Amino acid sequence: MHPLTRYMPILTWGRSYSRAALGADLIAAVIVTIMLIPQSLAYALLAGLPAEAGLYASIVPILLYTVFGTSRALAVGPVAVVSLMTAAAVGQVADQGTAGYAVAALTLAFLSGAMLMGMGLLRLGFLANFLSHPVIAGFITASGIIIAASQLKHLLGIDAGGHNLVHLLESLWRHLPEVNWITLAIGAAATGFLFWVRKGLKPLLLGLGMKPRLADVATKAGPVAAVVVTTLVVALFRLDESGVRIVGAVPQALPPFTWPVNSLALVQQLFIPALLISIIGFVESISVAQTLAAKKRQRIDPDQELIGLGAANLGAAFSGGFPVTGGFSRSVVNFDAGAETPAAGAFTAFGLAIAAIALTPLIHFLPQATLAATIIVAVLSLVDLSILKKTWFYSGADFAAVLATILLTLVYGVETGVSAGVIISLALHLYKTSRPHVAEVGLVPGTEHFRNILRHAVQTDPRIVTLRVDESLYFANAHFLQDYIYDRVLGDKAIRHVILQCTAINEIDMSALESLEEISHRLKSLGIKLHLSEVKGPVMDRLHRTHFLDELDGTVFLTQYAAWTALTAEPQDRPDDGALAAE
Amino acid sequence: MHPLTRYMPILTWGRSYSRAALGADLIAAVIVTIMLIPQSLAYALLAGLPAEAGLYASIVPILLYTVFGTSRALAVGPVAVVSLMTAAAVGQVADQGTAGYAVAALTLAFLSGAMLMGMGLLRLGFLANFLSHPVIAGFITASGIIIAASQLKHLLGIDAGGHNLVHLLESLWRHLPEVNWITLAIGAAATGFLFWVRKGLKPLLLGLGMKPRLADVATKAGPVAAVVVTTLVVALFRLDESGVRIVGAVPQALPPFTWPVNSLALVQQLFIPALLISIIGFVESISVAQTLAAKKRQRIDPDQELIGLGAANLGAAFSGGFPVTGGFSRSVVNFDAGAETPAAGAFTAFGLAIAAIALTPLIHFLPQATLAATIIVAVLSLVDLSILKKTWFYSGADFAAVLATILLTLVYGVETGVSAGVIISLALHLYKTSRPHVAEVGLVPGTEHFRNILRHAVQTDPRIVTLRVDESLYFANAHFLQDYIYDRVLGDKAIRHVILQCTAINEIDMSALESLEEISHRLKSLGIKLHLSEVKGPVMDRLHRTHFLDELDGTVFLTQYAAWTALTAEPQDRPDDGALAAE
Repeated sequence: MHPLTRYMPILTWGRSYSRAALGADLIAAVIVTIMLIPQSLAYALLAGLPAEAGLYASIVPILLYTVFGTSRALAVGPVAVVSLMTAAAVGQVADQGTAGYAVAALTLAFLSGAMLMGMGLLRLGFLANFLSHPVIAGFITASGIIIAASQLKHLLGIDAGGHNLVHLLESLWRHLPEVNWITLAIGAAATGFLFWVRKGLKPLLLGLGMKPRLADVATKAGPVAAVVVTTLVVALFRLDESGVRIVGAVPQALPPFTWPVNSLALVQQLFIPALLISIIGFVESISVAQTLAAKKRQRIDPDQELIGLGAANLGAAFSGGFPVTGGFSRSVVNFDAGAETPAAGAFTAFGLAIAAIALTPLIHFLPQATLAATIIVAVLSLVDLSILKKTWFYSGADFAAVLATILLTLVYGVETGVSAGVIISLALHLYKTSRPHVAEVGLVPGTEHFRNILRHAVQTDPRIVTLRVDESLYFANAHFLQDYIYDRVLGDKAIRHVILQCTAINEIDMSALESLEEISHRLKSLGIKLHLSEVKGPVMDRLHRTHFLDELDGTVFLTQYAAWTALTAEPQDRPDDGALAAE
Repeated sequence: MHPLTRYMPILTWGRSYSRAALGADLIAAVIVTIMLIPQSLAYALLAGLPAEAGLYASIVPILLYTVFGTSRALAVGPVAVVSLMTAAAVGQVADQGTAGYAVAALTLAFLSGAMLMGMGLLRLGFLANFLSHPVIAGFITASGIIIAASQLKHLLGIDAGGHNLVHLLESLWRHLPEVNWITLAIGAAATGFLFWVRKGLKPLLLGLGMKPRLADVATKAGPVAAVVVTTLVVALFRLDESGVRIVGAVPQALPPFTWPVNSLALVQQLFIPALLISIIGFVESISVAQTLAAKKRQRIDPDQELIGLGAANLGAAFSGGFPVTGGFSRSVVNFDAGAETPAAGAFTAFGLAIAAIALTPLIHFLPQATLAATIIVAVLSLVDLSILKKTWFYSGADFAAVLATILLTLVYGVETGVSAGVIISLALHLYKTSRPHVAEVGLVPGTEHFRNILRHAVQTDPRIVTLRVDESLYFANAHFLQDYIYDRVLGDKAIRHVILQCTAINEIDMSALESLEEISHRLKSLGIKLHLSEVKGPVMDRLHRTHFLDELDGTVFLTQYAAWTALTAEPQDRPDDGALAAE
């Protein structure tokens, strides 16, 4: 494949672009554009930036993803969790509303773009696998709760801040007496309306005989309706003069060219946050992309996706935006609306560019409470505590990881929460593998199959102990195995043979090899032979490169059944004469 | 067991203490005391402390280990690697020779003692397992090189410093013109003599007809001879007036009572170094203890060892010492000299206490170059680069971890080196398990056994793909499996059944379960059934708690052979009618 074609999927799908696809993409673009206008403004607010930054962050990034991305349906732009993480990271280095804040957001997008691009070129897409699903689910849930809480101040018309639930609630409580009742009325009405649109409107329209497709579009237009109505109300009655906060003057322009990096100190401060944002953004995006691709039997290349998202973020950095990624709800809408190719994204960008030029004067009187309502209704669908119940019943380790992630995110904020989640799930995994399940097995009568003596009625022989270690042997469990075997054989005088059934041993590292050598020597000194059975090809290859097999007192059997047949055939009264070792 | 007996092993072995054991312990104590006097002084120098601190660090800690330790032969006191780590840690917070430096060393011993004790009470002894053997070997080798290099300044009689090889060599090179030739002559003679004692003396004495046991003792006394001769030479010719640095005035006293903690800031600064020293010290000590115990069929309790070493370090902190642990060479000497119980340690402490009171005036003129020679000869036996060769042939991952540990320790010092070693070996292990070996298997003719189709001549069926995943399924490899299966089945129209042979799957976590559900749905949509075989008891128990088995299109077979028999019996021309799923 030509390198250009490899790194620019557009050269592949663009070549066979058809009139039918064009029609489908155009329709999808119209629907997504309508949905994105209020959403982009709202997420800019969430990130602590002026409303227009949300529009800018949706234009150039989408265009770049169209060129470099592999997903046919992914819609790239500001999303809730990444916007929250942006606010948390940038809030540490600059005050909201200052020029420094906007620049820091650009630097963050630049760093995140460079990291994603770099990881893509180095083919590090697999790194995303080290986030366990329950940890991600817990993190998204906790983030959703924080986001919703962070928007309450806009609904109440008060000042409050904080990047974790504790600070937010404490700050809200302190400012509660300053509540602006008109703002609250607008906010509550908008929230109630949007919830009703989500739950009640579609059934109603379907009941009235509307076609399902059209009912869907009408439902998606709900936020636009809320925006139009509340803007009109505020403008007509000049409620802004009564303290209702509005979006205000928004420049009527295409995205500006911005230079994202002008301080090395800022780069250092934002390095770790940018890394976390990159990883979380990538994981969110790739899981959406893969879900949608699977429905159409298409494939997503994780490494190319990194490049696509990297390009999108670099685009955001140079055009007045902030960190972006592939969003769940917008992508699903795009997919459901029938988008066939990434060209739908390009058309959406075009629609938003028109909005940036033509519609911005119209949103002058748009109350911030309406945008907050949009966010709250959107993110509460992310909150799903059922993962706690599911993992509780399935696995203690997964449950612990989820619970810790949720609590730490709520109490200490997004960065601590997600880092802790990753570390805890890795640590628990390592802990489990350091104390593997070891089963003593016997022959299932009438078969050549061996199972746990505690779970099945099996044949055994007092002279033979067969242990099946259900884990690869590596440094963390090497010592455990030694102790286990000594515990089992010391004091049982009848034992002549210990067989390690290696079906589940996928690797023996250097530390474990040394342990096996020690076990072999120690058993030899006790008059017991150590045998291996069912050693896998790759493990056997490696053992052949050492002296272990030469020094092993026992035999390596191809199958456990062969080991059993050979060793049980040994006469009872001839304790141990080394005949078998000579095989 | 009474809690006192549990935590104080002395109450067990002390009760049956015999006259024979007393004799053996006394002889061992005399030999170890002779060996320890110069060694203790030398390691104090290495740690950057006055010579007497080495004696103090050997008295109270040994007594406390006698009470709380489980090893019968372990000799506790200052050791080379821990002394080097002490110098590196304390050097960051205070200047050598100041009162603050000595206090920081006490704080470090206190923290280390508290951590070890805490880990012991919490039964965290297993944590030591997360250091892989090759990483430890690499770390010890690199530390030995750094220690030897750090002593060159004493041999040359110049000032030089640094806690990694680069700084040390650079500093030595800069001060080289200031070399003191008399010091160099003494140092070179002492080093040459000690090397000869190590390699050539014993064969010579044996050749002269001396008994092996006596020849051994004479060899151990080599450093004492070097100390006596060089001290006399310096005293007689007053070489100290010619610039030969001597130990100088050493207080003639028993260990003082010292208060180890008087600054919270210091505690914070030394926290991480203390943790690293605790872990490295514990690993070194426990491996010596276990090696010696295995020779006498005794057992070591890692958690009680933590308590024993914790008590020893707390003792060092309150009696003018610095961090200590069980040393390799002194423990081997103790063992070889016939020590029967920890009482040998108590007698050694008594011997050293006499030395501290009576012998200190005699070492006034002891040249530091002699002590440096003692250290160099001792630590060069730790340097063993063969681990690089061994791991090179055995496993790339182990080799990479060792090489990185050695290089990082040499270039960046002990703390970075050992931390990086642990992280790299864990990361490589996780990386390997995230891309598990998957074998497509077939039936070995004439058996019920299935092996890799690429390595063995086996029977297969075009309708059936059997995959054996050689790894537990967890979040890091959940996606890999999905991709692997889709790659295998897409495009092969003949396939009707995919069997996952779960012999090597020891765990399926929540993330992997979700992946399996997705695989099952996707295969179903392709008209392919997913079956499982040889699922282990604990894994099956857990699957029963989910809906996975209800929704699974295929069957769970007890054995792979049963799966094969059932599925190959299905008629060729009846593609897929769900009959089997109803089993």
